[in-house]
Amino acid sequence: MTAIAALREEVADLHRELVRYGLVIWTAGNVSARVPGEDLMVIKPSGVSYDDLGPDAMVVTDLHGNLVDGDLAPSSDTAAHAYVYRHRPDVGGVVHTHSSYATAWAARGEPIPCVLTMIADEFGGDIPVGPFALIGDDSIGRGIVDTLRDSRSPAVLMKGHGPFTIGADARAAVKAAVMLEDVARTVHFAHQLGKPDSIDQQHVDRLYARYQNVYGQ
Amino acid sequence: MTAIAALREEVADLHRELVRYGLVIWTAGNVSARVPGEDLMVIKPSGVSYDDLGPDAMVVTDLHGNLVDGDLAPSSDTAAHAYVYRHRPDVGGVVHTHSSYATAWAARGEPIPCVLTMIADEFGGDIPVGPFALIGDDSIGRGIVDTLRDSRSPAVLMKGHGPFTIGADARAAVKAAVMLEDVARTVHFAHQLGKPDSIDQQHVDRLYARYQNVYGQ
Amino acid sequence: MTAIAALREEVADLHRELVRYGLVIWTAGNVSARVPGEDLMVIKPSGVSYDDLGPDAMVVTDLHGNLVDGDLAPSSDTAAHAYVYRHRPDVGGVVHTHSSYATAWAARGEPIPCVLTMIADEFGGDIPVGPFALIGDDSIGRGIVDTLRDSRSPAVLMKGHGPFTIGADARAAVKAAVMLEDVARTVHFAHQLGKPDSIDQQHVDRLYARYQNVYGQ
Amino acid sequence: MTAIAALREEVADLHRELVRYGLVIWTAGNVSARVPGEDLMVIKPSGVSYDDLGPDAMVVTDLHGNLVDGDLAPSSDTAAHAYVYRHRPDVGGVVHTHSSYATAWAARGEPIPCVLTMIADEFGGDIPVGPFALIGDDSIGRGIVDTLRDSRSPAVLMKGHGPFTIGADARAAVKAAVMLEDVARTVHFAHQLGKPDSIDQQHVDRLYARYQNVYGQ
Repeated sequence: MTAIAALREEVADLHRELVRYGLVIWTAGNVSARVPGEDLMVIKPSGVSYDDLGPDAMVVTDLHGNLVDGDLAPSSDTAAHAYVYRHRPDVGGVVHTHSSYATAWAARGEPIPCVLTMIADEFGGDIPVGPFALIGDDSIGRGIVDTLRDSRSPAVLMKGHGPFTIGADARAAVKAAVMLEDVARTVHFAHQLGKPDSIDQQHVDRLYARYQNVYGQ
Repeated sequence: MTAIAALREEVADLHRELVRYGLVIWTAGNVSARVPGEDLMVIKPSGVSYDDLGPDAMVVTDLHGNLVDGDLAPSSDTAAHAYVYRHRPDVGGVVHTHSSYATAWAARGEPIPCVLTMIADEFGGDIPVGPFALIGDDSIGRGIVDTLRDSRSPAVLMKGHGPFTIGADARAAVKAAVMLEDVARTVHFAHQLGKPDSIDQQHVDRLYARYQNVYGQ
Repeated sequence: MTAIAALREEVADLHRELVRYGLVIWTAGNVSARVPGEDLMVIKPSGVSYDDLGPDAMVVTDLHGNLVDGDLAPSSDTAAHAYVYRHRPDVGGVVHTHSSYATAWAARGEPIPCVLTMIADEFGGDIPVGPFALIGDDSIGRGIVDTLRDSRSPAVLMKGHGPFTIGADARAAVKAAVMLEDVARTVHFAHQLGKPDSIDQQHVDRLYARYQNVYGQ
Repeated sequence: MTAIAALREEVADLHRELVRYGLVIWTAGNVSARVPGEDLMVIKPSGVSYDDLGPDAMVVTDLHGNLVDGDLAPSSDTAAHAYVYRHRPDVGGVVHTHSSYATAWAARGEPIPCVLTMIADEFGGDIPVGPFALIGDDSIGRGIVDTLRDSRSPAVLMKGHGPFTIGADARAAVKAAVMLEDVARTVHFAHQLGKPDSIDQQHVDRLYARYQNVYGQ
């Protein structure tokens, strides 16, 4: 199997994770993966039901969003994904959802404070807010890249819109999207009945270092 | 397959989407489709479990709600659907649910403000509230039609009752019902901890135009 | 099949509805059915997982909770069910859950106000609160019967405990439990951001009469 | 089948209960079981997807967390589980999750008050909060053991982190984790719209005694 065929399968599978964790409805949301060593990416087609997102439905574009392979028009968020890949060579996967709790923080333009060890582990601090940006040019992509430049967080809450997450590969970006919604929900609940303490910066640093380097196999 | 047989199947399938997205419980909620070119509609029977809603259970009525074909009594909301079809020739599908978040806004009689790009995309502005109306005559149908006349929104929140959505066909009306509950939930969460900014009207207009014309295949 | 064998099957099936609608966890909650024309009831065994609740696991007791048939000890709530059957000959089914939203109203000892047409339809007015009562004697059963005597509601919120629902048969009692949690949730949401208007008594009466007499097949 | 092989299967099965009840996401959370009569325990491997958690993936360690059998690195929470087994010979199972509602109480460092009969039954009083503790040494284990020493509760809410539960065996610890999230949610809802009354201590005592001794088969 070629690298692109394998990525089509992986990206199709990862869309199912968005459904499983309740991060998307109908045709909203999308996952993409950079094709390693080439200026190409694999991304979801626009407006197609999650039931119909097999490997063959996935679309290949260059890193300016021009269609290279596939029968369907690429996601309407393709320009944002492409901008991220062009400006962040370390990023191999991008995910966008409108998951409810993360989007509620995004609607208010309020960062999610680092009040849980799980946030320190995965996000390394507060989860930042990006600018309100219209679809149609590079505004969203630039907002993502500019906001994440000075952060350890793989997630950004785009104001009035919803979250984008990045990762070394598409799976890592999906993991960040899943964990983002989980902590967005838990901190929402915590704030409804009081104000949790933030974790000390030195503890955040130790938790982040350990989780990034020791956790897993 | 005749047009009516195909619509019976489609309407039965679409009821399963209401279940999948958690918009209905027990026997509540209903989808209908206009039979193109005829003064007929296909609608759910009254008080039948979602497990038993195959194509054969669906009912055909005229646009005054009189039974034309089918073994079961039509939905108790048939009069409201029929009124919409009589007064909105552009409408090919109608959906009614009591989905929890949308109904909570309806209980308070409060429109859902356009604070998310997803609301601008699909609803083109705030999602309006219709009057409190009793079942049994044309009050509900008239409330729907009068409220939606001056709105781009395919959804109306009937006061103290629940949402109705419309579309060019039944699938579009179901999509609107799914997206309505999603944004009702997200904006509910956003309001619990603050007050999100509304999106500028010019941005709403651009987002709506793009989503209606460019999105999808 | 004997009446009791059929009821064992029906009661087993109805327990699955409690799971489907998320009204119960682990082994909590129970459904019972009166055996028509006999002083007997069929009820869930105590502390058995929902995965293992086939017809054979169901237990038959008399209307004082004494075991008549079955290999397992009856539900620890058997006395409450039995009291209801002894004092309400019109009741053929009883359900008890700790469903989250209904139990939250029960924890505060606050009735659910009739602010939705769906509440008027099924419950005929506010959903009342019963006394705090300890398990172990007739206190819970008496609390249920005394509270529901002057109400059209098939549901009572036992203070600091959770809901009980009744019906002409077990299926009707389960339906009431499902609808109760749904309206408990929606009215909870509505109250979080404001105060919905109650429906006028005359409208409640008309809605209740129609739903009880016209709705369904 | 050896005792360890049986425990591998049981612990693998119990992880599926965490998924079923929505207590965990991605690879977070873990269950362990003490091997009866030996200074060993069976625990989840670190960072492995719940889809891949068959019996063979489980790991055996001694009660200081050193790997004894298995191909994968043990859970990053192994030290905490091991500490509990060393200091609580009565404990045969330990569970850790970040379930949303319980973790929200943990984020605020607020005990869950005993306002429901279900809390009295299973937890015997308020559900206590343990200290904020960093992963990497015995701090978490010591926090769990010290907090639960003076409580009947099988659950502790570790500040800024999440819940741990214990039981006579792994199944009992999982049951406690499931019931904890359920009551954490219900009491959260109750507090959002008011302040429920606590149950009198004498009633708590009677409910706890009955549930621990009479409930079940």
